[in-house]
Amino acid sequence: MEKIKIDNSVRGFPMPMVVVGAVVDGRINYLAVAWVSRVNSNPPMIGVALGKGHHTNKGIREHKEFGISIPGVDLIKAVDYVGLVSGAKVDKSKIFESFQGQLQYAPMIRNCPLALECKVITKVDLPSNEFFIGEIVGVYTEERYLTDGQPNIKKIKPFTLTMPDSLYHEVGEVIGEAWSIGKDFKI
Amino acid sequence: MEKIKIDNSVRGFPMPMVVVGAVVDGRINYLAVAWVSRVNSNPPMIGVALGKGHHTNKGIREHKEFGISIPGVDLIKAVDYVGLVSGAKVDKSKIFESFQGQLQYAPMIRNCPLALECKVITKVDLPSNEFFIGEIVGVYTEERYLTDGQPNIKKIKPFTLTMPDSLYHEVGEVIGEAWSIGKDFKI
Repeated sequence: MEKIKIDNSVRGFPMPMVVVGAVVDGRINYLAVAWVSRVNSNPPMIGVALGKGHHTNKGIREHKEFGISIPGVDLIKAVDYVGLVSGAKVDKSKIFESFQGQLQYAPMIRNCPLALECKVITKVDLPSNEFFIGEIVGVYTEERYLTDGQPNIKKIKPFTLTMPDSLYHEVGEVIGEAWSIGKDFKI
Repeated sequence: MEKIKIDNSVRGFPMPMVVVGAVVDGRINYLAVAWVSRVNSNPPMIGVALGKGHHTNKGIREHKEFGISIPGVDLIKAVDYVGLVSGAKVDKSKIFESFQGQLQYAPMIRNCPLALECKVITKVDLPSNEFFIGEIVGVYTEERYLTDGQPNIKKIKPFTLTMPDSLYHEVGEVIGEAWSIGKDFKI
């Protein structure tokens, strides 16, 4: 069928919802973020793209550390809330119970099934966003989210955001095994 | 409950599956990629993190252009296949029917519901990966994937990868509206 051109700002794919934690002006702050991706295998690194207007950026720039908490679906309201209000106006430090690992300025959320503490390696300055690349120096979970010592997605219950419909989605049915289902593919 | 530390290489969140297209040594090549994220709002930019050993990187470095095709679940076997075999050994140019937009070296897949052509703005050289940041200069779809002129996730049917279980998942049930469900949140 005929291809048509649409708005370049399209997303069109499900984006993982995480909460970025930072210490800004001496106070813990949290921001809901969907523009996140692993970026390096070894050592493990992750990147988050934050609009330059966000309060959080200031803290990450200053301390070169941030936390990434991966919320389960039960936290959806609180996660959405920290994406709605700015830490410049509202004290978001008490919304979640925080904990820290080995880094001092990488606050993580105790109620999140998985949390990563990250040390900034580099920052890419883009026109409207800053892309912070952090080395993952610690990953925290609880026994109840593991199966055979590995995080279990069915227990973690992360969720995604799709655009432009602005909807949060559960992780859906399993449809295949990666690096496997394509083995019998024939052109 | 008690927090425990696990392997730093954890993912733990659903990652969108896309297919990166490039022209390598004069031949179209495709690679399945899950490390992808939008990174800038205006102008729209997207980043992909590719292991340095991949054949695809060479083509993107040379031509500074790449395509990103967002496959629907019906293409799962072919998508997995292009993640299993290297373009250095196998000719992957005929696996999909390709099309191009305004860029010459940003091949996209005709059978994918959404496809983006990207011009490299910068490349971040990381220890084991290269993170290519591209400006999205064209987005292509078909009328049948739109609702009121906007891409409809239910029609596109993208899928995600989770780790460490190596499973592909459909997009699941809608659990809330973003920038909305948190409005009545109280601490």
